[in-house]
Amino acid sequence: MQKLKCTISYDGTNFSGYQIQPNKRTVQSEIEKVLTTMHKGDEIRIYSSGRTDAGVHARAQVFHFETPLDIPLSNWRKALNVQLPDDIFVQHIEKVDKTFQARFSAVQKEYRYFILLTEDRNVFLRNYRYMTNDEYDDSLLKAACRAFEGEHDFTAFSSARSTVKGSKVRTLHTVDFERSANELVFILRGDGFLYHMVRIIVSVLLEAGRGDITPAEIEEMFTNKTRGTFGKTLPPQGLFLWKVMYEERE
Amino acid sequence: MQKLKCTISYDGTNFSGYQIQPNKRTVQSEIEKVLTTMHKGDEIRIYSSGRTDAGVHARAQVFHFETPLDIPLSNWRKALNVQLPDDIFVQHIEKVDKTFQARFSAVQKEYRYFILLTEDRNVFLRNYRYMTNDEYDDSLLKAACRAFEGEHDFTAFSSARSTVKGSKVRTLHTVDFERSANELVFILRGDGFLYHMVRIIVSVLLEAGRGDITPAEIEEMFTNKTRGTFGKTLPPQGLFLWKVMYEERE
Repeated sequence: MQKLKCTISYDGTNFSGYQIQPNKRTVQSEIEKVLTTMHKGDEIRIYSSGRTDAGVHARAQVFHFETPLDIPLSNWRKALNVQLPDDIFVQHIEKVDKTFQARFSAVQKEYRYFILLTEDRNVFLRNYRYMTNDEYDDSLLKAACRAFEGEHDFTAFSSARSTVKGSKVRTLHTVDFERSANELVFILRGDGFLYHMVRIIVSVLLEAGRGDITPAEIEEMFTNKTRGTFGKTLPPQGLFLWKVMYEERE
Repeated sequence: MQKLKCTISYDGTNFSGYQIQPNKRTVQSEIEKVLTTMHKGDEIRIYSSGRTDAGVHARAQVFHFETPLDIPLSNWRKALNVQLPDDIFVQHIEKVDKTFQARFSAVQKEYRYFILLTEDRNVFLRNYRYMTNDEYDDSLLKAACRAFEGEHDFTAFSSARSTVKGSKVRTLHTVDFERSANELVFILRGDGFLYHMVRIIVSVLLEAGRGDITPAEIEEMFTNKTRGTFGKTLPPQGLFLWKVMYEERE
């Protein structure tokens, strides 16, 4: 048996999310179907760094699995890409030692949320951008980003449907944005993310950029553990799991 | 009654082409459905500059229709965009005189064909780019573009399924390309296009760019009216109806 670590991109548009569900097209089930075929019917289970919701994309999601097959790595990549549907692509595959776990070995994750600043609907980007015509002040955005960085209890910034038991304290190492002509991209990097956390934080950042909430009010939400009337869950199509980081291993 | 000229964008991915067909989702049927609702059930027919195939996109398609409704133009645009599905968007709407015909008044059309030069499948562009890993020589491409410009009998460069009766002589005013880091965009502008003509011409241009066909051989195809083994019909997803041009009217 060997353990393989696989880095994939997927377009979340036509999936009911990452995780396997009965009678739904999910990223996990498409991949497991291909692997099971390659193993002549023996069911292969894959373990990812975490789920993504319906409509959420991944530039670089990571999963691991174990296999008795002895195939060169470059052939693995080719074989998977030939059989996978065209909205999943294996970027990279490598051998890892038995202790590696896509979820528990991850030290940081980066998400990006893409916003198209436009009055008109762009039909070609409707599945890949959140579109808005509002205006956002860069210095207000900057100050709000700073308020989110560091270690906080993110209870107020996760979905009530979150199934996490135990601590909702997480550390965000980076909360930043890049602005180009008609685009605003938020970059969040941290040691862990709660359910809907990125989409809620970016929603609050946008409120801050419109002058509707101050950094002091954000601080209060950490303490009070409730959002009150602030922060919605932004739509999934702007969200990309950008990168999962692991410790360098010998 | 007034006649309105409407400029729309659409993402061709989820349509069985532009033209109405029984039990298929088409651009024309989606628009006529909305217009018919706005006219309280009176069937409204729209007339476009021409059809596009399944999977082919439009940055700026044009159609006209007649209506007894007296609604300000900006409200027309808003009302249509609220009711249309999110893969169609009305860019512009204006009043035209009775003699205007979206198809017959058009003097030129521009199509663009987008090619992503990549070894890996890009899952996010799979519906909007033709992807290839081949290499193309710019001076060979340039020379082949020149061979297509001007007035020619394009019989060899249209689908056998073409329903055009009569002359297949057309004039291409511009055949050109733009190259960026990992993209090649072909720009074709002419007075008219036969069925599959752009996708076949670009296929031959790519063969020329790989050194597989010379400008002299392209000339022969005009004369012989047959492609022989050259030129396939490239996939639809790279193709965009870019612009339809009309004479300026007083």
